[in-house]
Amino acid sequence: MLPVVVVHGGAGHIPKERAELSTIGVKEAARTGYVILQKGGSAMDAVVEAVTLMENNPRFNAGRGSVLNVKGEVEMDALVMDGRTLASGAVSAVRRVANPVQLARLVMEKTNHLCLTAEGASKFARSMGVPEVPEESLITDYAKMRWKKNLGPDANPVECQMGKMGTVGAVAVDIDGNIACATSTGGMINKMEGRVGDTPCVGKTPEEASDLALAYMKERVEGLGGVVVVDPKGTWAARFSSLQMSWATAQQGELHFGLYHGEDFVEPVQEDT
Amino acid sequence: MLPVVVVHGGAGHIPKERAELSTIGVKEAARTGYVILQKGGSAMDAVVEAVTLMENNPRFNAGRGSVLNVKGEVEMDALVMDGRTLASGAVSAVRRVANPVQLARLVMEKTNHLCLTAEGASKFARSMGVPEVPEESLITDYAKMRWKKNLGPDANPVECQMGKMGTVGAVAVDIDGNIACATSTGGMINKMEGRVGDTPCVGKTPEEASDLALAYMKERVEGLGGVVVVDPKGTWAARFSSLQMSWATAQQGELHFGLYHGEDFVEPVQEDT
Repeated sequence: MLPVVVVHGGAGHIPKERAELSTIGVKEAARTGYVILQKGGSAMDAVVEAVTLMENNPRFNAGRGSVLNVKGEVEMDALVMDGRTLASGAVSAVRRVANPVQLARLVMEKTNHLCLTAEGASKFARSMGVPEVPEESLITDYAKMRWKKNLGPDANPVECQMGKMGTVGAVAVDIDGNIACATSTGGMINKMEGRVGDTPCVGKTPEEASDLALAYMKERVEGLGGVVVVDPKGTWAARFSSLQMSWATAQQGELHFGLYHGEDFVEPVQEDT
Repeated sequence: MLPVVVVHGGAGHIPKERAELSTIGVKEAARTGYVILQKGGSAMDAVVEAVTLMENNPRFNAGRGSVLNVKGEVEMDALVMDGRTLASGAVSAVRRVANPVQLARLVMEKTNHLCLTAEGASKFARSMGVPEVPEESLITDYAKMRWKKNLGPDANPVECQMGKMGTVGAVAVDIDGNIACATSTGGMINKMEGRVGDTPCVGKTPEEASDLALAYMKERVEGLGGVVVVDPKGTWAARFSSLQMSWATAQQGELHFGLYHGEDFVEPVQEDT
């Protein structure tokens, strides 16, 4: 059964013209993570690499391609968690780094803290030799267009959240049976400066929590979302509540991937890894 | 049974010479919160006022009296949550505000976000007319002394965490049966710049979660902590895992308070509110 990696490209409405490239991106991320696992790499290596690819891919709302805050700037959140040691690391509202997920891993490995935020996170990055990248290198024309569109007096950036791609993430089990996960996001369109979401917060009880959390979110706040979980045996599950989400999973030499559209689950496609 | 308010002054080792003043502080906070509830005030009003008092009291690690980060600065985290609406608000690594808990409430009430961090939180404070206070007004001689002590080459600020007061908090049920909670902290002694702890993160399932979380923390990371919970009927409970913690609760015109010392639970004292 082992190893396995599951990758998602974010919940939210995915415009038709972007769906194919989004699916290609999650496939690429899942395949890359799986190759690492096949070679005996750790689950942590696999999820960080998978999420790094999506951060570098301008199609996703993470790293390059992140949505912009109300001032037209990029502030990103990311988290990693290692099931073997229960260690975790996170960054929030971090600027001018290409790969927040790698910085989150450094927080886990090189500090006594769980989360560093904003300028403190940037200073830590510099102290670790992580290069500072120009803000413009993270900003795509698509992000700029959507930002401008939501600056108008009639705009409703919160309602418009369904028009963006959400948080990306990956979970994996390696050949030693260890689990790791990683998430990364640019957050909400036209968010206030310094806004932090739930991406850099550690959760718990993955099996029940996924269904419970989605049901709860829907009941109480009419919220929509999706979650992917994987247990130590390598069994994976994706749960959704009426939304679109691209995902991919690789195990036993097979790559499954698909797009979930509202109530209709698009049958996963399969190919060799 | 209603209304009820429970207040804690933070887990950690409380030096003898500070224990009495700490207990006076939590009593004052619980009494003040209770008076608000008796007059028909909301649980949210009660917990914010109770925590505000502890933030203003230099005996607690929150607001004035916060521990210092490695650079000798104050960066604070706070959270409020309203059980009636499930709304919450938080600030993290915020500087130069006297009452982070009040700013957290403004995040909940005046923004579409759950958490604002660092400079973004400060800018929001200014936009809301919250006065910026001089950093020195938040720094006590005691905090400065402990900061200096932990700068030395032999210092171990993480081990030394037991030498400080932890996060303060309050939970309340008002006469309408609504629950609210609030927490506030200066964080860890000599923490890195931008460090965010778990204080500004929303939790869940309070009843079991308290015991489970403490057992889990002890089992997996040998960590010590304390938690106070209150259910909609106004029943309250405090749970500890081998540490010191000052607490107070007010209900039915009676004020109970005490100090928990390691394995020995000091019998709660009782007086009229």
